[in-house]
Amino acid sequence: MVRDQVQQRLAELLPAGPDGDRVCTAMREFMLTAGKRMRPVLMVMAARGMGHADDAIIDVGCAVEMVHGASLILDDLPSMDNAELRRGQPTVHRQHGEDVAILASVALLSRAFQVLAELEGVPAPLRSELLATLAAAVGSQGLVGGQFNDLHGSEGARDVQAVQRTNELKTGALFSAALEMAAMTAGASARARALARDCAVQLGQAFQLQDDLRDGDDSALSGKDGGKDAGKCTLITLLGREEVQRRLQTHLQRAFALLAELDGQHDDLVAFAHQHFRST
Amino acid sequence: MVRDQVQQRLAELLPAGPDGDRVCTAMREFMLTAGKRMRPVLMVMAARGMGHADDAIIDVGCAVEMVHGASLILDDLPSMDNAELRRGQPTVHRQHGEDVAILASVALLSRAFQVLAELEGVPAPLRSELLATLAAAVGSQGLVGGQFNDLHGSEGARDVQAVQRTNELKTGALFSAALEMAAMTAGASARARALARDCAVQLGQAFQLQDDLRDGDDSALSGKDGGKDAGKCTLITLLGREEVQRRLQTHLQRAFALLAELDGQHDDLVAFAHQHFRST
Repeated sequence: MVRDQVQQRLAELLPAGPDGDRVCTAMREFMLTAGKRMRPVLMVMAARGMGHADDAIIDVGCAVEMVHGASLILDDLPSMDNAELRRGQPTVHRQHGEDVAILASVALLSRAFQVLAELEGVPAPLRSELLATLAAAVGSQGLVGGQFNDLHGSEGARDVQAVQRTNELKTGALFSAALEMAAMTAGASARARALARDCAVQLGQAFQLQDDLRDGDDSALSGKDGGKDAGKCTLITLLGREEVQRRLQTHLQRAFALLAELDGQHDDLVAFAHQHFRST
Repeated sequence: MVRDQVQQRLAELLPAGPDGDRVCTAMREFMLTAGKRMRPVLMVMAARGMGHADDAIIDVGCAVEMVHGASLILDDLPSMDNAELRRGQPTVHRQHGEDVAILASVALLSRAFQVLAELEGVPAPLRSELLATLAAAVGSQGLVGGQFNDLHGSEGARDVQAVQRTNELKTGALFSAALEMAAMTAGASARARALARDCAVQLGQAFQLQDDLRDGDDSALSGKDGGKDAGKCTLITLLGREEVQRRLQTHLQRAFALLAELDGQHDDLVAFAHQHFRST
């Protein structure tokens, strides 16, 4: 199972630090707590579908998962979403203090870049390209920009387009980078890279809408504070649950159509996505 | 002047974002506020002394300065040093809010890695090596570890060795990475890289002691809150000012001795260091 491979490799890439190193402890504990590993799983499936046979993609997937983890730790901080629960556990700052949470997040980010810079069996030009792609997905035109919009977007009037733009940055940027990095690692053509990005944008939107739909539900489903988004404007508050469910399905269908055009064989990925979104 | 070249290039590498992008504004404003630019200046001088003639080293220096800037923004946060002034200005979180400060810091870190990944005129294997070196200097065995020790080291009894270890991580790690990156960029030998690292450790210690000596003085000298370290255990509280001044000179002399062994011609660097430390 891809998920187990990712889990095992994360444990190797994030060793326990020396005694009393609470930053290492926080990084490791948080990253090894069961997550969906959606990004690395999609990446590994996509890369294998495009013919990539070796394990370099597992490490690339772990780097993306570390960036995702770093962003979750930051999102939960008191000055951001001020969340108490994540993945069914107290958030990192509640367990280890705000300073340790911030430092753990920064250390995870740099560890992710280090893992890519030191990827074994991958030519240096490709490593640089992977790095540049991941760095761009974090910056002010990616996760950081999305988080800022998410926190401050509601200061003005917010319409469907503005919320979609926030979702694109907050979820889409890392999804797009992840699937483009999968195509890069598999040595796919420029056209395939572009298709992989487009497909990831659709999957990212579907994923974000599923998250919004669950956030209003019982928190046991998401492992997060129930209704944390109550004060925020999501597509559900703007369009209603039924329309959001319809849009989620549209994004999924578009993703599948793009996958059908992509080089290689993507039945596993399609089956995985069907399975994942079935419960929505 | 190297300092002006760095300043100009930072302005190009950190463009103003779209209207209302407060994260970009905070990054740019903070990074363009006059700093000493100690790390890039030392790097450029060392690389040129080793025969490196082109401008790639300016970009490498800017990347290191962005990481340094990101670490200062984090150090000042309420959950860390809770500082009000930096470089004579209100700290980033006081000007823009804590969330924007954290996001700006994260965006600066990823921008630094992106700049290295996209360095023009530098072969990809060297870019990867530079990246791995910088990432290691940020992580739990570098800046992050140093900041954690600095915040939590005083929880137990603290001796001279423990304080020196914190200084090595907090200042030495980035100084060492900076001068090693200069040697790498100049295509220097493995021996020269190691000498550059050792020299940087000595310069970093001297620099940290100078900072400690100034912190007790008038805040106008440092542009920081005067006496912010009052609650912290520094070498001054453990050894007294006179001994610290003596040690600072010892570190400097060691640095100069190592520079004399380093490939190339380093009179400019020695003159610069003499000038910089003269006022201490």
